Amino acid sequence: MRIIIMGVGAVGGTLAVALAASGQEVVGIARGAQLQAIRDGGLTLRTPMGDTHARFSCVASPDQIDWRPDDAVVMTVKGQHTAAALDQLVAAGVTDQPIFCAQNGVDNERQTLRRFANVHAVTVMLPATFLTPGEVLCHGAPKPGYFDIGRYPQGLDAADHALAEALEKAGFGGYAVEDVMASKYGKLLMNLHNIAEAAIGEGARPIAERMRAEARTVLEAAGIDARDMGSNDPRRTTVMKVTEIPGTQRPGSSTTQSFERGTGSVETDYLNGEICLLGRLHGVPTPANDWGMAIAARMLAENLKPHSISFEDAKAALAVTANSR
Amino acid sequence: MRIIIMGVGAVGGTLAVALAASGQEVVGIARGAQLQAIRDGGLTLRTPMGDTHARFSCVASPDQIDWRPDDAVVMTVKGQHTAAALDQLVAAGVTDQPIFCAQNGVDNERQTLRRFANVHAVTVMLPATFLTPGEVLCHGAPKPGYFDIGRYPQGLDAADHALAEALEKAGFGGYAVEDVMASKYGKLLMNLHNIAEAAIGEGARPIAERMRAEARTVLEAAGIDARDMGSNDPRRTTVMKVTEIPGTQRPGSSTTQSFERGTGSVETDYLNGEICLLGRLHGVPTPANDWGMAIAARMLAENLKPHSISFEDAKAALAVTANSR
Repeated sequence: MRIIIMGVGAVGGTLAVALAASGQEVVGIARGAQLQAIRDGGLTLRTPMGDTHARFSCVASPDQIDWRPDDAVVMTVKGQHTAAALDQLVAAGVTDQPIFCAQNGVDNERQTLRRFANVHAVTVMLPATFLTPGEVLCHGAPKPGYFDIGRYPQGLDAADHALAEALEKAGFGGYAVEDVMASKYGKLLMNLHNIAEAAIGEGARPIAERMRAEARTVLEAAGIDARDMGSNDPRRTTVMKVTEIPGTQRPGSSTTQSFERGTGSVETDYLNGEICLLGRLHGVPTPANDWGMAIAARMLAENLKPHSISFEDAKAALAVTANSR
Repeated sequence: MRIIIMGVGAVGGTLAVALAASGQEVVGIARGAQLQAIRDGGLTLRTPMGDTHARFSCVASPDQIDWRPDDAVVMTVKGQHTAAALDQLVAAGVTDQPIFCAQNGVDNERQTLRRFANVHAVTVMLPATFLTPGEVLCHGAPKPGYFDIGRYPQGLDAADHALAEALEKAGFGGYAVEDVMASKYGKLLMNLHNIAEAAIGEGARPIAERMRAEARTVLEAAGIDARDMGSNDPRRTTVMKVTEIPGTQRPGSSTTQSFERGTGSVETDYLNGEICLLGRLHGVPTPANDWGMAIAARMLAENLKPHSISFEDAKAALAVTANSR
């Protein structure tokens, strides 16, 4: 299996370096300064265990790849870029190859299944950071991260086992699971905090808790199972814990990183927005997640940096009382 | 109610002219040559009943509008452009105003509900054509067309009744209905032929019939109701029949028009693609609709004109026998 990484950012970059360094065939698809840096000098992955540097083939778009039947696509673009990435894959002639959605949120799989028949979901437990072209950080140890993998909407096939094996060989935890979407909905619950943290920084916890409480009510109303991917998952201690890398700081969630890099878009529509959508479909109010959507729109419109919203603003908007902290 | 038409193409243009000509407040949002033509000289609507010319305010994007609480957005962009249009509406500060998805397909409502709370669906029965900037044709008579209107995912509110009334005043049929999505799924069944007709022209009927038969099986498996919007709908004789306009030709479906204008994208992913998606989610094979998706991708990749695929090619791909015609 040759693995095509669609989007060499934080997650895609960590995967690409580790797969290439373990002798596996990888092709990256990247843009701008990151593409240039990888072509010029390869990509460096810094983890608590040390630094790894790898060179691998990297192109600007899928039509520059000579596609093979044994290719597998790993989608690592953010949710707001999935539709355009799928257009590119269709135009490049990808048809039956497995496509793995290794992205946060739960809508990428549905968007991909509209265009392709062989679709898989991957839950990404990988505290990775991309801020500088040519370098990615991953703060997980003893393994950099782990992944639940399965067919969408459910089930398992040989491609899932093959990807799990490839990831294990690259030093990650790779788990083929029958009901991968339960794990992805569990991860979604964790990602609801991303915008709260990006907006107000350290005091975000009570806001995020409120968002998650709403989300649990919404998922129950929708009849959707979510697996606990938080601290109750034993793999969070035995496989991967978030750990310091000497000389680096973790800048926060991927949403915080997007505001930090000034990318002009964030993934909030596919995280908190999924809860708002399900709430509206099933008649459950979601004021905290609505606030997350509104604050993301405001931060984008006003081009604000991370942590520029005061906790008092957020608290007023949510009517979070001192007691609920 | 001021009506903001997001996308002044065939449907949006017909609506804008008829609403403006009946003295109602309209703002159009258009691009390129169409925007320039409307600004320079207004827009002409040609129907079997005669020609109507109207001037109305038209802007390039939503942030050029001074939004009011009594605004209602009517979305008339194609499905592949909905996400970008919604981004623009969020950035322009639209929040609680009703948004009516007057588009083919059934995914626009879901995409819109992710971003906004006040979402409505409109089934568009309007044989309109846009090929030349400054002019739209609509081949319906005695009324140019009619519309089912309701809240998404279901129900009715004052905004639905207000839009129905505005459309009646503009000379259309406007029907507020409790379960508008059943009507939209019915229209979806009709739109499955669009790509078949765009690909092979007159001989498309047996292909389209096969696509519809698959779709009925898929909708039944998914538990989705579809109202018959075809020739069994009495409104197709009493309210609007497709009729000649002297001196003009009808160039075919909106998909045919997209290939004719060389727009570089077609709506097939949100028409046949919806059936492929539901088929894959519910385990129902959809080879005819898969063929439609593949032929749309090929026609876009090779920049083919309408009707450039032979019926023999299509027949071979589908294994449609002479008997099944």
